[in-house]
Amino acid sequence: MTSDLDRTPVTVVGLGPMGLALAAALLERGHPLTVWNRTPEKADELVGKGARRAATVAEAASASPLTIMCLKDYDTMYAVFDAAGDALRGRVLVNLNSGTPNEARAAVDWADERGVAYLDGAIMVQPPLVGHPGSVFLYSGSQDVFDRHRATLASLGDPRYLGADPGLAVLYNTALLDLMYAATNGFLHASALVASAGVPAATFAGLALDWFLPTVVQASLAEQAPALDAGHYPGDLGTLEMNRNALEHITLTSREQGVHDDQPRLMQGIAERAIAEGHGDRNYLAVFEVFKKANAARA
Amino acid sequence: MTSDLDRTPVTVVGLGPMGLALAAALLERGHPLTVWNRTPEKADELVGKGARRAATVAEAASASPLTIMCLKDYDTMYAVFDAAGDALRGRVLVNLNSGTPNEARAAVDWADERGVAYLDGAIMVQPPLVGHPGSVFLYSGSQDVFDRHRATLASLGDPRYLGADPGLAVLYNTALLDLMYAATNGFLHASALVASAGVPAATFAGLALDWFLPTVVQASLAEQAPALDAGHYPGDLGTLEMNRNALEHITLTSREQGVHDDQPRLMQGIAERAIAEGHGDRNYLAVFEVFKKANAARA
Ligand SMILES: NC(=O)c1ccc[n+]([C@@H]2O[C@H](COP(=O)([O-])OP(=O)(O)OC[C@H]3O[C@@H](n4cnc5c(N)ncnc54)[C@H](OP(=O)(O)O)[C@@H]3O)[C@@H](O)[C@H]2O)c1
Ligand SMILES: NC(=O)c1ccc[n+]([C@@H]2O[C@H](COP(=O)([O-])OP(=O)(O)OC[C@H]3O[C@@H](n4cnc5c(N)ncnc54)[C@H](OP(=O)(O)O)[C@@H]3O)[C@@H](O)[C@H]2O)c1
Repeated sequence: MTSDLDRTPVTVVGLGPMGLALAAALLERGHPLTVWNRTPEKADELVGKGARRAATVAEAASASPLTIMCLKDYDTMYAVFDAAGDALRGRVLVNLNSGTPNEARAAVDWADERGVAYLDGAIMVQPPLVGHPGSVFLYSGSQDVFDRHRATLASLGDPRYLGADPGLAVLYNTALLDLMYAATNGFLHASALVASAGVPAATFAGLALDWFLPTVVQASLAEQAPALDAGHYPGDLGTLEMNRNALEHITLTSREQGVHDDQPRLMQGIAERAIAEGHGDRNYLAVFEVFKKANAARA
Repeated sequence: MTSDLDRTPVTVVGLGPMGLALAAALLERGHPLTVWNRTPEKADELVGKGARRAATVAEAASASPLTIMCLKDYDTMYAVFDAAGDALRGRVLVNLNSGTPNEARAAVDWADERGVAYLDGAIMVQPPLVGHPGSVFLYSGSQDVFDRHRATLASLGDPRYLGADPGLAVLYNTALLDLMYAATNGFLHASALVASAGVPAATFAGLALDWFLPTVVQASLAEQAPALDAGHYPGDLGTLEMNRNALEHITLTSREQGVHDDQPRLMQGIAERAIAEGHGDRNYLAVFEVFKKANAARA
């Protein structure tokens, strides 16, 4: 089975914005497609393009060896498939909804009890980019299911297998979103700082996004990532104490410019926590040691 | 005067780690160099390479038409040069220390009163990268001084003139550092999340820094920067309400995995503040409106 020739029949369950995009990508790549959604009308356009609308989940699941589902959450998956009896037994279910690692791990037990081969996944792009070969889809859990259906999954984007722990895909997904929000907030707060002096965000972006973020920040993080794993934070090119001062300076400048200062103050507080834990003469990356531990108050 | 032929004599005042790097870059590019530092021994190596050590600041400032200084802060600049009498009158001073926009603006008044042509600047790289043609140096204030000495400033890196407001260079500098810390914290916190499942930061970096940050985050921010200036945040591809839920999910997953949750909780709180201000059905970038205002409690 090669990517080009793969025409495995597929069932898609769940036709929210994301499920619709998944179904459309599969149809376009020539997979015989069966769909089911609680609100059946959402399938109208797909049916017009050749998809088959199943009347029940059981009928949908029986129509294909592989069911890809994208419902709201894990609880919805349980409700929908437990109402379908044994239809999935001996078949494959790939779940692409979001959730926590523990939820993904529990879903494997649920699937095992029902004789369903289960793969957990997470989608790293918005619906319009589904089907583009560069759009990353993360999978974890059964490597066997992944290997057998890799060509079909490649119809949705770039499939990446992360490991046997079924929680990895949703955990990576959450971590990447965490990075996205933090970097986005960094750009928005920095833009607010220069906006206070009348500089347009589009002007600032020319320096901040075209040069600084890729050339200075990203390159240095990529270079230093192995040091995080080694817990090796030498302070010879700059210490956490110096960075704390720089962060205080960002907080003070925010106040001077009439810009919201919660975010720089939090970063300053995190640096101070790392210093209090004895990392003051190490470099900035030692805040990783703070992040890796649960908050003291709740620990 | 072209960059290749420029051999303007330069004085460097302040030989901390950064001043030493500036002086070395100027010497290497063939500028006759005079230096002064409170602790004179720090000039030893430079003197060995042909620099002239002045006994006083006055002597140093008189030796060249252009003085570049990199002392600890603005107060140090006032203390050092006010002790030098009229030595700078009719000459040019380029100041590269860090500070706030108001401090930079006040320095222009200070220089005007003393008959000194003044340019404020900020250095966007660490000392080892000074002298590399791609290393960005930001300048603001007198365009005349910038234009006249551009070739000399190019010996230090890539000189960028930001505008007539002398506060712009230090403000951009602070904003870029703000972005750097936020993006770094995002990567560190995300790495802590995957580390909780045994994934090395170096493995995560392959996806997070080589693909996700440049391809998904940076590209979309660059595309949307003009919308920030227009205050245009259409929610049709995703609303702040949805993002708030995603941020709550990051907070909960952090707790479930035993990872510090202050940072995602702060981001969730900022999204909630934007929703409370009426932006719930706009897209995520509407948090820019929160950042642009001083904190309510102190406003
Ligand atoms: N949209 C994105 O950009 C994006 C990106 C990555 C991941 N995801 C994830 O993909 C999953 C689906 O997202 P989505 O954007 O398509 O929309 P969604 O609103 O999260 O989910 C909508 C789907 O869930 C179904 N559903 C909800 N409650 C149900 C119930 N009680 N019984 C049966 N079906 C129920 C809906 O059916 P009805 O049509 O009948 O309401 C619809 O099929 C989510 O986990 C989301 O986090 C979304
Ligand atoms: N290092 C970096 O990575 C970096 C990057 C960008 C910008 N900067 C900025 O560049 C400026 C200089 O930084 P730096 O790293 O070189 O070290 P620094 O510790 O900030 O400054 C050291 C310089 O200030 C002098 N100084 C301090 N107090 C003085 C006083 N009371 N009287 C006279 N001189 C005094 C020191 O003289 P002595 O040698 O006699 O102590 C030395 O020349 C700072 O504003 C910094 O924020 C630094």
